Amino acid sequence: MTQSNSPSYLNELRWNEDGLVPAIAKDWKTGKVLMMAWMSAESLRCTVEEGRAVYWSRSRQALWRKGESSGNTQQLKELRLDCDGDTLLLEVEQLGGMACHTGREHCFYRQLTDGEWQTIESVLKDPKEIYGTGS
Amino acid sequence: MTQSNSPSYLNELRWNEDGLVPAIAKDWKTGKVLMMAWMSAESLRCTVEEGRAVYWSRSRQALWRKGESSGNTQQLKELRLDCDGDTLLLEVEQLGGMACHTGREHCFYRQLTDGEWQTIESVLKDPKEIYGTGS
Repeated sequence: MTQSNSPSYLNELRWNEDGLVPAIAKDWKTGKVLMMAWMSAESLRCTVEEGRAVYWSRSRQALWRKGESSGNTQQLKELRLDCDGDTLLLEVEQLGGMACHTGREHCFYRQLTDGEWQTIESVLKDPKEIYGTGS
Repeated sequence: MTQSNSPSYLNELRWNEDGLVPAIAKDWKTGKVLMMAWMSAESLRCTVEEGRAVYWSRSRQALWRKGESSGNTQQLKELRLDCDGDTLLLEVEQLGGMACHTGREHCFYRQLTDGEWQTIESVLKDPKEIYGTGS
C-alpha cells in the first residue's frame, strides 16, 4: 500500500493481515447497531471523501458502496476510532430505513432465547423488491 | 473443536479461520457502543452460561473474562446474531461505567475531525487506579 498521497489519518489504523479493519455502523437517530462490515484503507478514504459508508467486500474483493444496488446508502455523520486503532465506528443516517439485505432495519435480528437464535424482527420490504430481482 | 457436548446455538455461527467472530458490546442503558472484541465458541458458551461477557484474547490466546482485573464486568442483558452469522451483538450492563482500559466510558473516544483523530472524551479514572499498578 502506498502512503505517498494518502491522508495521514490512515496511518493510525492497525490493519489486519488482509489490510482490513472491522467497521461498525450505528444509526445516529435510533441508536441501533445496524451492521458490521470491513474497511480497507481505500474504502475508508472513500468513506471520508464521499461522506457515505464505503466498505470492502471480502467476497467480491472490491469496494462496496453500501446502497449502490438498493439505494439504501449510509450517510456519514460521525467517524470514530477505538483505543487500539483497529476498529471503526460510524454514525450514519440510514437511507430507506433498512441496512440489512434481508429487508430488515438492521442485521442483528436474531436473539438468543431458550438456547436458540430466534428471529424477532420482521422484514420491512421483500428483498426482491429492494434489489429488483423479482418479475 | 468437539461439538459433542456443545450447545446447538454454537453451530449457527460462521467462525473465521481462527475459530473466532467479532463481538460488539453495547451499553443497554446509554445505547453507546462500548467496544469490539473477539469470541471463540468456548468464550461464547461461557458468556451465555455465566451471564457476562467472556471474550477471547488474541494477544494472550486465552479466555478473557472482561473485568476480571478491574472489576468492570459486563453483565449480559441480551445477545444477538447477525444475518450471516458471523458477528455478535451484546447488550450489556457495564459495571463501573468504564469499558475501556484507558479509563474511559468506551473505546471509541477518538473522532475524525479536520483530517485528524481527535480525542474528545475524558478519562474518568486513572488506569493505574483501575488495575492497581500504581503505588
